[in-house]
Amino acid sequence: MSTNTPPPVPLTLEGAAVLHQLFRIDWSSWNAVEPAKKDSILEEAKHVLFTLEGDNSGLFSILGHKGDLMMVHFRAGFPALEEIERTIGRLALNQYLVQTTSYVSVVELGLYESTQKIYATLLERGVTPHTPEWTSGIEELLATQRKAMTPRLFPEIPSRRYICFYPMDRLRGEQKNWYMEPLPVRAKLMHEHGLIGRRYADVVKQIISGSIGFDDWEWGVTLFADDPLVFKKLIYEMRFDEVSAVYAKFGQFYFGLRHPVTDLEKLF
Amino acid sequence: MSTNTPPPVPLTLEGAAVLHQLFRIDWSSWNAVEPAKKDSILEEAKHVLFTLEGDNSGLFSILGHKGDLMMVHFRAGFPALEEIERTIGRLALNQYLVQTTSYVSVVELGLYESTQKIYATLLERGVTPHTPEWTSGIEELLATQRKAMTPRLFPEIPSRRYICFYPMDRLRGEQKNWYMEPLPVRAKLMHEHGLIGRRYADVVKQIISGSIGFDDWEWGVTLFADDPLVFKKLIYEMRFDEVSAVYAKFGQFYFGLRHPVTDLEKLF
Amino acid sequence: MSTNTPPPVPLTLEGAAVLHQLFRIDWSSWNAVEPAKKDSILEEAKHVLFTLEGDNSGLFSILGHKGDLMMVHFRAGFPALEEIERTIGRLALNQYLVQTTSYVSVVELGLYESTQKIYATLLERGVTPHTPEWTSGIEELLATQRKAMTPRLFPEIPSRRYICFYPMDRLRGEQKNWYMEPLPVRAKLMHEHGLIGRRYADVVKQIISGSIGFDDWEWGVTLFADDPLVFKKLIYEMRFDEVSAVYAKFGQFYFGLRHPVTDLEKLF
Amino acid sequence: MSTNTPPPVPLTLEGAAVLHQLFRIDWSSWNAVEPAKKDSILEEAKHVLFTLEGDNSGLFSILGHKGDLMMVHFRAGFPALEEIERTIGRLALNQYLVQTTSYVSVVELGLYESTQKIYATLLERGVTPHTPEWTSGIEELLATQRKAMTPRLFPEIPSRRYICFYPMDRLRGEQKNWYMEPLPVRAKLMHEHGLIGRRYADVVKQIISGSIGFDDWEWGVTLFADDPLVFKKLIYEMRFDEVSAVYAKFGQFYFGLRHPVTDLEKLF
Amino acid sequence: MSTNTPPPVPLTLEGAAVLHQLFRIDWSSWNAVEPAKKDSILEEAKHVLFTLEGDNSGLFSILGHKGDLMMVHFRAGFPALEEIERTIGRLALNQYLVQTTSYVSVVELGLYESTQKIYATLLERGVTPHTPEWTSGIEELLATQRKAMTPRLFPEIPSRRYICFYPMDRLRGEQKNWYMEPLPVRAKLMHEHGLIGRRYADVVKQIISGSIGFDDWEWGVTLFADDPLVFKKLIYEMRFDEVSAVYAKFGQFYFGLRHPVTDLEKLF
Repeated sequence: MSTNTPPPVPLTLEGAAVLHQLFRIDWSSWNAVEPAKKDSILEEAKHVLFTLEGDNSGLFSILGHKGDLMMVHFRAGFPALEEIERTIGRLALNQYLVQTTSYVSVVELGLYESTQKIYATLLERGVTPHTPEWTSGIEELLATQRKAMTPRLFPEIPSRRYICFYPMDRLRGEQKNWYMEPLPVRAKLMHEHGLIGRRYADVVKQIISGSIGFDDWEWGVTLFADDPLVFKKLIYEMRFDEVSAVYAKFGQFYFGLRHPVTDLEKLF
Repeated sequence: MSTNTPPPVPLTLEGAAVLHQLFRIDWSSWNAVEPAKKDSILEEAKHVLFTLEGDNSGLFSILGHKGDLMMVHFRAGFPALEEIERTIGRLALNQYLVQTTSYVSVVELGLYESTQKIYATLLERGVTPHTPEWTSGIEELLATQRKAMTPRLFPEIPSRRYICFYPMDRLRGEQKNWYMEPLPVRAKLMHEHGLIGRRYADVVKQIISGSIGFDDWEWGVTLFADDPLVFKKLIYEMRFDEVSAVYAKFGQFYFGLRHPVTDLEKLF
Repeated sequence: MSTNTPPPVPLTLEGAAVLHQLFRIDWSSWNAVEPAKKDSILEEAKHVLFTLEGDNSGLFSILGHKGDLMMVHFRAGFPALEEIERTIGRLALNQYLVQTTSYVSVVELGLYESTQKIYATLLERGVTPHTPEWTSGIEELLATQRKAMTPRLFPEIPSRRYICFYPMDRLRGEQKNWYMEPLPVRAKLMHEHGLIGRRYADVVKQIISGSIGFDDWEWGVTLFADDPLVFKKLIYEMRFDEVSAVYAKFGQFYFGLRHPVTDLEKLF
Repeated sequence: MSTNTPPPVPLTLEGAAVLHQLFRIDWSSWNAVEPAKKDSILEEAKHVLFTLEGDNSGLFSILGHKGDLMMVHFRAGFPALEEIERTIGRLALNQYLVQTTSYVSVVELGLYESTQKIYATLLERGVTPHTPEWTSGIEELLATQRKAMTPRLFPEIPSRRYICFYPMDRLRGEQKNWYMEPLPVRAKLMHEHGLIGRRYADVVKQIISGSIGFDDWEWGVTLFADDPLVFKKLIYEMRFDEVSAVYAKFGQFYFGLRHPVTDLEKLF
Repeated sequence: MSTNTPPPVPLTLEGAAVLHQLFRIDWSSWNAVEPAKKDSILEEAKHVLFTLEGDNSGLFSILGHKGDLMMVHFRAGFPALEEIERTIGRLALNQYLVQTTSYVSVVELGLYESTQKIYATLLERGVTPHTPEWTSGIEELLATQRKAMTPRLFPEIPSRRYICFYPMDRLRGEQKNWYMEPLPVRAKLMHEHGLIGRRYADVVKQIISGSIGFDDWEWGVTLFADDPLVFKKLIYEMRFDEVSAVYAKFGQFYFGLRHPVTDLEKLF
């Protein structure tokens, strides 16, 4: 590889640390609790979860057996997520919950288009990839974008009625391998993919988070909408798009409804 | 992609929100319950499930270890399904049930044939895909169909003796990829597929529900028949059809018998 | 597809409904039961299982952790299997058993050779596939065969010392796809496959059951022999046969010994 | 297939029936037992396992969460293994063990080289494959080998400090398919494979057991060595050998240390 | 294969035996313990784990449901790891822990570059591969390297704030097969791979451990860093490298934070 070949890696910006937690209610043991004890257990939980909600956590009721409740937490860093896990673990309510799964990631903005421009600019300036000058040139340009994109890097949980979450990978097959495609090809495919998303921008709020090194899939996708059918329409339309049709591998899907923590008892 | 290329996505109509719930009876703990308590537990359950049954839910006894009972619920929207989950969770009977799996979807009518006509009509009118005019043109044509197809979009659970349920995906392989096939090819394959189904129309009632964004597979198929062997014959014959032979991936199969809720105690 | 092309589906005959049930003994709780209670629990179970045995059920002791006991039931139809599940569920012994898996199917005779003859006969008569005349012509010919084959469609459980059970599918790969092979090719491969089976006919009794629509695999294979090594030899030899080498996908294997229900206590 | 084509199946000799049993210690309940009761539970277990050890069973302590203890039993036939399962099931110690997995197989010697010679000899004599004369000719030649190889067919458990066990299959891929390769090709690959094994003969004792028809993989490999690093070196070197590189699929690996049953309490 | 062809196996050096243990805290039962008993349970655990920590074990808090705690142990050999498992098993705290997974391996230094030089040197000297002279020639050269690399073979757990652990395999696909690539090709790919790692050397400390024969994957990768985002950046950048893009298969990822054992109570 010539030292003047730009690297194949697209630049990314990272923001909030994110934790998705799925819980099943252990109805057998919950149903056996006396009403007064139920009340005090729920009061404690509401008190604690209300504080979390104020710090950018959301409570959702999930449909189907994969979980009854989902908590999604956005925080400045991982230590805050670690503390949240302990806080929820210590709740009396936790005796009646079974954690079925979770997802650890950070909000990520993929900069496929900027990447090509930044690499071209630096190469035109005669900067050699991976030299300190290259690295600082990139960091300088990223810093500007990071600042401009702060609201998207540290988003508030959108206040829509429905949520859809799923993790995904890019295919590394024996014949079709995303990671072996040249950067311009990937950038073009991602651009076309983005056009579909843009048509749904009014009705679906999408947060992409990266989880390479943090969890078992490469990315998590969290969608928020008031009309649940738009999840189906958006994902189905995207599935015909080459970048998804050929290169996307999907994990499990979690679908549910937002509930304010103050309504916690309605879910029990 | 030229702006006059019609999109590759077939149009669909969505109807009732559907929840399949599978439960295993915990015989060890149930057998230990005193007869009088059993009676009162079953009475409460029958009372509650009878109401659900009246609202278009069905009770089935499933063969094999994957579950002993299946409840299938058709409702106007997802909030009603959420409420059903809580209602069943709170039953005293629930202490003796283990939920083994579930499926969340919406009744879907795929309009492969109409799609091609609608797209052609709009293109002939000079309407550019994805413009507001295109979108409203499609919505107008869909509205007519949606009205005409209301009984199929919001079906009553057919009163047949046997049920067969399974989820499925369309293959996205490295060489054979449903989502990369042109719309006319897919439409032709779906048409041939439909011809087989039509030959079985008298003896099998089929409900297709879409679950992209709602659950882990793309579609659920629920079949109802009085003669269980027709499930085997229909699915076997379809498996030789190109659209299934090459492009279908199947999940687990759940097979059982319908029971009126009033017969609940016979299942315990 | 020309209307005079015979369909690709081989004809089959269906017989007894079959249920394989695997149970693990919960030794921890069983060992804690007092001897007198053990006796009464086993007496009840023996009484009930003895009746089932008389109705064509068999009791087996399975080797390895996948189960300690297997019950195999052959009955006239599925409602009888449903009743058996409840009968076993209600046994006091059931408190000390964990059902690990099961298999639901119907005895099936695949008529690859007859299919070609029947289709040829009907086409020679000028009968068009899928017309009522075609369907009744086939049914007429099947009726004769069904009568002749009643003993094989509703078999007694062979009284051999060892059992081997496994489910299987035919491959639908991107390059090798059983369901896309022409009927004459499949018929030829199945014929060669049958020749191997015939050489083992004296030492292995084989029952094929179909489970499309009933369970997660397409077929179940249940073998009975007095010498367990013939299972290994037969299956190994068949694995080199093209129809297995290329087109067979196997599930888990369950291997064990027959025990009369009267010896039930020896297994506890 | 001409009747004079020798069959593709390599001849094998079968010996001892083998059972690998993996157990996890339930530390929570074990730690709660009073010391005196612990002693009596271990005394009973030691007494029973000591007898098994004398009959060619070995006790191992497994590293990692897949199990804490492994028992490996070599016996003359399967009924003895069935009896061992019950004997261990009935131990008081069993209340503190969870069986995590197992493996059922028979010691197997693959005779790739002899097979070719035997087939050639018989064909030269003009014997037609699969005739009674062919079968008895083979059985006669096998009988001699079986006698000579008795010590390898019914081996003592080697007294080495470490054990490594894993199951494996031969690949049946769409392009690379072991079972479609001609016998001479397979024989040549197996021969080269054997040369690697021979270089390790002094430091690793290997027992191959066949499990087609008995368990979920085709073979089990059990290795014994005093230096655990030779497992890594041997298996890594073999992995570059075509027969493994292309045609081997491996299951889980179990690795541990031998302990005499008299030291059982050290493991609790 | 000519006797003068150097073997395809790269030389490796092995060092410390390594055990990764993942535990979930059973909050339900822990929350029910009285404070005084909690204190004494944690005191005992701290005392024992503090000793382990001094012997080169590390305590980590893992994010997500895959585990709450991870212990990583580096020791001179496997018997010490076996003893650690028993020591932790016997802790009173263990009653409130569920071991969810583990990993067994040995620190490994792959010597792709040296291998080619050593093989060339020996071949130039006229030494035939696999002769005693060859083996001792290699061992002599390895001995020198082993001595020089002792600190890397028996590393101290790096004192960084974050940990990332995942197991991996090299692909043995039907078309892309790492183990069928010539040694020089693999050496070149590994060299390029190493260049990326080198650019991150200041911010990420990486320990590779081999687990062929010891656990279910071929290698374990354990990364240590003060900034968690470098895990994501490093692994993402490497994923575009041919050796990862085409030939790497990854298992589950475990991500967490280091805690001194003296802070154990903060995690409960």
